[in-house]
Amino acid sequence: MQELKIDFNKELFYSFEEIVTWRRYLHMNPEISFQEVETPRFIAEKLRSFGIDVRENIGGNGVVGVIKGDSPGKTIAFRADFDALPIQDEKEVPYKSTVNGAMHACGHDGHTSALLGVAKVLSRKRHDLCGTLILIFQPAEEKPPGGAKAMIDDGVLDGVDYIFGGHLATDVPIGKVAIRSGASMASVDAFKITIQGKGGHGAKPHSTVDAVAIGSELVSHLQQIVSRRVDPMEPAVVTIGSFHAGNAFNIIADTAVLEGTVRALNSDVRTQIEEEIRRILDGFQTADGITYTLDYLNGYPVLENHREETQLIEQLVKENLSPEALALKKVVLGAEDFAYYLQHRPGAFFHVGARNENPATQFAHHHPRFDFDEQAMLVQGQVFLLLTAHYLL
Amino acid sequence: MQELKIDFNKELFYSFEEIVTWRRYLHMNPEISFQEVETPRFIAEKLRSFGIDVRENIGGNGVVGVIKGDSPGKTIAFRADFDALPIQDEKEVPYKSTVNGAMHACGHDGHTSALLGVAKVLSRKRHDLCGTLILIFQPAEEKPPGGAKAMIDDGVLDGVDYIFGGHLATDVPIGKVAIRSGASMASVDAFKITIQGKGGHGAKPHSTVDAVAIGSELVSHLQQIVSRRVDPMEPAVVTIGSFHAGNAFNIIADTAVLEGTVRALNSDVRTQIEEEIRRILDGFQTADGITYTLDYLNGYPVLENHREETQLIEQLVKENLSPEALALKKVVLGAEDFAYYLQHRPGAFFHVGARNENPATQFAHHHPRFDFDEQAMLVQGQVFLLLTAHYLL
Amino acid sequence: MQELKIDFNKELFYSFEEIVTWRRYLHMNPEISFQEVETPRFIAEKLRSFGIDVRENIGGNGVVGVIKGDSPGKTIAFRADFDALPIQDEKEVPYKSTVNGAMHACGHDGHTSALLGVAKVLSRKRHDLCGTLILIFQPAEEKPPGGAKAMIDDGVLDGVDYIFGGHLATDVPIGKVAIRSGASMASVDAFKITIQGKGGHGAKPHSTVDAVAIGSELVSHLQQIVSRRVDPMEPAVVTIGSFHAGNAFNIIADTAVLEGTVRALNSDVRTQIEEEIRRILDGFQTADGITYTLDYLNGYPVLENHREETQLIEQLVKENLSPEALALKKVVLGAEDFAYYLQHRPGAFFHVGARNENPATQFAHHHPRFDFDEQAMLVQGQVFLLLTAHYLL
Amino acid sequence: MQELKIDFNKELFYSFEEIVTWRRYLHMNPEISFQEVETPRFIAEKLRSFGIDVRENIGGNGVVGVIKGDSPGKTIAFRADFDALPIQDEKEVPYKSTVNGAMHACGHDGHTSALLGVAKVLSRKRHDLCGTLILIFQPAEEKPPGGAKAMIDDGVLDGVDYIFGGHLATDVPIGKVAIRSGASMASVDAFKITIQGKGGHGAKPHSTVDAVAIGSELVSHLQQIVSRRVDPMEPAVVTIGSFHAGNAFNIIADTAVLEGTVRALNSDVRTQIEEEIRRILDGFQTADGITYTLDYLNGYPVLENHREETQLIEQLVKENLSPEALALKKVVLGAEDFAYYLQHRPGAFFHVGARNENPATQFAHHHPRFDFDEQAMLVQGQVFLLLTAHYLL
Repeated sequence: MQELKIDFNKELFYSFEEIVTWRRYLHMNPEISFQEVETPRFIAEKLRSFGIDVRENIGGNGVVGVIKGDSPGKTIAFRADFDALPIQDEKEVPYKSTVNGAMHACGHDGHTSALLGVAKVLSRKRHDLCGTLILIFQPAEEKPPGGAKAMIDDGVLDGVDYIFGGHLATDVPIGKVAIRSGASMASVDAFKITIQGKGGHGAKPHSTVDAVAIGSELVSHLQQIVSRRVDPMEPAVVTIGSFHAGNAFNIIADTAVLEGTVRALNSDVRTQIEEEIRRILDGFQTADGITYTLDYLNGYPVLENHREETQLIEQLVKENLSPEALALKKVVLGAEDFAYYLQHRPGAFFHVGARNENPATQFAHHHPRFDFDEQAMLVQGQVFLLLTAHYLL
Repeated sequence: MQELKIDFNKELFYSFEEIVTWRRYLHMNPEISFQEVETPRFIAEKLRSFGIDVRENIGGNGVVGVIKGDSPGKTIAFRADFDALPIQDEKEVPYKSTVNGAMHACGHDGHTSALLGVAKVLSRKRHDLCGTLILIFQPAEEKPPGGAKAMIDDGVLDGVDYIFGGHLATDVPIGKVAIRSGASMASVDAFKITIQGKGGHGAKPHSTVDAVAIGSELVSHLQQIVSRRVDPMEPAVVTIGSFHAGNAFNIIADTAVLEGTVRALNSDVRTQIEEEIRRILDGFQTADGITYTLDYLNGYPVLENHREETQLIEQLVKENLSPEALALKKVVLGAEDFAYYLQHRPGAFFHVGARNENPATQFAHHHPRFDFDEQAMLVQGQVFLLLTAHYLL
Repeated sequence: MQELKIDFNKELFYSFEEIVTWRRYLHMNPEISFQEVETPRFIAEKLRSFGIDVRENIGGNGVVGVIKGDSPGKTIAFRADFDALPIQDEKEVPYKSTVNGAMHACGHDGHTSALLGVAKVLSRKRHDLCGTLILIFQPAEEKPPGGAKAMIDDGVLDGVDYIFGGHLATDVPIGKVAIRSGASMASVDAFKITIQGKGGHGAKPHSTVDAVAIGSELVSHLQQIVSRRVDPMEPAVVTIGSFHAGNAFNIIADTAVLEGTVRALNSDVRTQIEEEIRRILDGFQTADGITYTLDYLNGYPVLENHREETQLIEQLVKENLSPEALALKKVVLGAEDFAYYLQHRPGAFFHVGARNENPATQFAHHHPRFDFDEQAMLVQGQVFLLLTAHYLL
Repeated sequence: MQELKIDFNKELFYSFEEIVTWRRYLHMNPEISFQEVETPRFIAEKLRSFGIDVRENIGGNGVVGVIKGDSPGKTIAFRADFDALPIQDEKEVPYKSTVNGAMHACGHDGHTSALLGVAKVLSRKRHDLCGTLILIFQPAEEKPPGGAKAMIDDGVLDGVDYIFGGHLATDVPIGKVAIRSGASMASVDAFKITIQGKGGHGAKPHSTVDAVAIGSELVSHLQQIVSRRVDPMEPAVVTIGSFHAGNAFNIIADTAVLEGTVRALNSDVRTQIEEEIRRILDGFQTADGITYTLDYLNGYPVLENHREETQLIEQLVKENLSPEALALKKVVLGAEDFAYYLQHRPGAFFHVGARNENPATQFAHHHPRFDFDEQAMLVQGQVFLLLTAHYLL
């Protein structure tokens, strides 16, 4: 296995220039979530050019490549996402986005290109492989309900034994692979509360049910979910991102619309928060004479890395990259729809350092000047190759 | 009638020294609400000494004197209250209170002495009177449930056609009589809210129902009854006078006790506020997982002067004292259990200026240095005599 | 005087049909505040047709007619307003508004027509008049800064001794004239608060200053101005009519904009409330790390009827219409820019019953189906004629 | 080393009966924090009976035993605390507390007895030891400012290279040792806020500064420190445990006193929270016209286990007890003044499972029926012996 692995990596390194070319092409031609047309076509074409079987329009705009080894064995899946963000590219580079208001500001161009590199390498090794490799190119990671769930519903995990995914990270130094067992990314839900009071003249509050005053008390109340009702050891956020009520300074508003998000690292906490919101709204209905509607949309669940597969990546990284290459993933309350795959199959999601000394590689994800150290794509590819060697050689 | 009236007043003036002596005796020997023993005895004795029929222990410590005219006619009642306050007398006068922690700080000593003066004058005129005069000396005005209601329940208004009462007022200049038709003093209710949450360790809010945090949100909510739910044209107050919860900095409190008062000048508003408090508590029960008890004690009702009897006093004052003597009573949210009598019989309650240039007469009622211009007792007596002349001569 | 007065009224009654014609023409051709073009032209033309001197474009779109009596004497002014509202007329009558989105929903068409009727009557009586009559036709009453202030600045009160105005009222029965001495309509101010916090990711509240959460606490705080800081005997309202913050459920808002109105019946309270708002905002700046701007626009002041002129109207109504015709104006917190005239000259503003048994005359002002009993215009005119007789005959 | 270690443990096991006897004696004779007299005397006497040098009255009631090995080497310290709690013992066992209102409800009797057992074993092995052992018996752990700080100030760490402590835990199964590197117990601070408003009559809020209403808004504001201002990944609690204001339902309170606690697992967060409280109070001073005092008492700091010493214990436990014996300490927001020692010296604090199938061993710490599996004392002693063998053999 060792030798083959070295062999894999060598070939991946040889492909670096090509991977960069693909990445920059994708970077210049971003397509935002659920509107991906050219990107999946590009991916499918590349895969076919490597002689790989391709299935398109999986769960919408998804593309799946299948590399079946000559010998029987496990089936493992690797996933890369390929959607861009509705952000205006503000950096000055030759490969700057050519699409107004769209940009690969989260590195998905890198994920896709790295996985294409892995595909090219392994397409030539199928005689050596015992088992099957499923290459999942997923659209719409950035926007709930996301692409993962649709691809799973479309059967992409059928027959799969393990699944892995990775993310380039500009808050991790180049050369590092960061991972954590268990909950490592947050659930993210969206809610919309509409309070229906009763409007009226600004000078006659007693003949109204004031949606602004009641909505404001509601926000105070909702803030106490995190401060008083959730276990302080459990990270959680209830944010009301927008509050809109009323059209005139002298008319009491009949309606207030509050939109917000709930984040948690524990499914029970997530469920608890939804219940608390509803309980508080029920109480306000009685206390304040409003009616309400609550649209509570479950977004991505908590991403829970499986223990054994996490330890496998830790071990592969330590032994094959370097002991220093391994880092403990810092938990944040960001979300990732890779979480769905891990609800169905064992696997893990890792983060690959993509920041170097150049300030251009140090912007936060979703920043209009986001960029990354392109060598990180090699590291991401290496982890996939190490996993392949482990399972299929 | 004119001549007789002058006659009345002359005799009242002759009695001034005696009235002052009574007042100062009472001032030195105050008895607080529901604990009046010597005061009613003193009153009864004086009345008897004037040859007036006396009934004692009416509605508790009340005393009633009856002056029956030789001819038949209307029955009118005058009321004076005689209880003191649990306040330490801090002024330096020869007639300072001799009782530790008790003081006539609201002028009831003056009300009683003025009515005794009236009693003495009229006791000698019974041959001229057509009808009957009921002199009500009432205990416990300062402390709900008060003395008025008990005396009414004990029959003090039986056969009475009209009832009148007056109050010395250090915010009105000496010589003035202030009155207003309709609502002129507030209803006053007391409430006690007990919130039952669930206590626990200060570091584990999620395993508790935090009575301090919820009680605080409740206070905010209750404040919006006045600002949003009551007609802004209707004066109203919801005060939470005390908030007590918890015994330790690091233990989450299971219980919070809030005590407060509701004031209004309109019975409907009063009722509305009680309902709003209950509605809000019901809502919090749902929203916050507490249970609660609400003890809502109806104190004195709104004091509503009857229109005709008010106009009568206005006219008597303008014509017999002076046109400038009449003032429009400024409405405040203070309360007075004379309100009960006016729920049963036509009548009115007036305020008699008792403030002169001497700062000693300018302290607010209930102040530890409260005192008044003793001539005000003559004005108060005069109004009673004018009313007597009007109805019974 | 009596005979002449009867004479006046008779002529006014003869003009009723014409007044109705004018009113219906205006009703069909409404022009909203500050956009009045045809209406003042119509008024000027009518006045000229009565042989009255006319000045146009006073304080914007204002029209002034001057009737100079043959003999010298006092100068009195009557004011009618003539702007319409941006409301869609929803009633079905032959004289329904022909202008989309504009409607005389407050009766200003009636005020103007009544005053035109008065003008026509008096234009023929100038030989009998001792003094001068100023007929003020004012635009833009509905929209601060209003038309009154501009007309005053343009000299409309120069030489005027007394000023009077009236309003048709569908909450008062036809035949009644309601008036009150002193504060009888509210001051109305508008404010706009912009809170500048710091936006950010919905999952990272600690790196933001959350304008929604802080704005909500602010609303709670502002509500306590009325409930805790203003004398409960002083009617006051602080309404936040609109609250707008944030654009996305998962982005913490950097800015919140709150617009509201302050109403009071006492200038000191009005000033106090503005100061309290500013004080609370200053405190939040420290407590919450926001900055803010407060645009506080003084709208119309408290309308304070002068005592003598109010009593004059009361007397004229009681003696010439009927004792039952006089009603005490119920104070509400609505506003009226006639208040400005009364800051400069003695005078009074009265309300004329315009509601009859027909439900069509019972809609609230500003309702899309607002209409009134057209006979009310005669009553309004009568009061002006009685005042003319009083001062100028 | 291995053999000696086994030897140590064997002797500890032989002492089990004696250790139990000591523990039960202490359990029957509890002394609460800062009032320990007989307990330190008992400990000193036992240590002397083992031939150990004893220093008493260290940092108050502390006792220190010193075992100096025959050869030079490192100096390591073990700490046991020995104070009891002001809780009434409610369990029925022969060794029930004999002191009314005092009880060893946190297992400190076990800590002390285990360390006495270790002392006895090692007192006989001093010829084999290379270095010095410091046995710290500390009073007053349960009550800030605690005993640790005073003992440190009194020099107890002079010359010490490493320090270790342990705690029996009824939420951990018998046989387990739970530990965590880094922050594993919380800082705990106490604060007392006094708001000075202005009292007054319940019907005149405008002439007061209402401490109840303002204090309630303050609580709402303070709750948003955790929900909005602290990084959601950082566990933190701000609890207001008590709120006391006002003495009468109808008097507006002039003063409110709020007492609370702040818990954090990160010193920066702890500092931030104190600053946020002060900032909010400064803001309320401006917004609401109060003055305030804030007494902020820093209690125990965050307990931060040192990485190397933590790993050492992990390794010793896995290798010498069993791999399954090691558990990851669940972080809670409880506090422990052992944290002070770790601010000065490398070391670690571990938790020893003390719960078995018997419900009697499953009550929470500080429960009136708290008890533990006495075998846990052997495990605690074993860890100390393993550390001794590691450093001093």
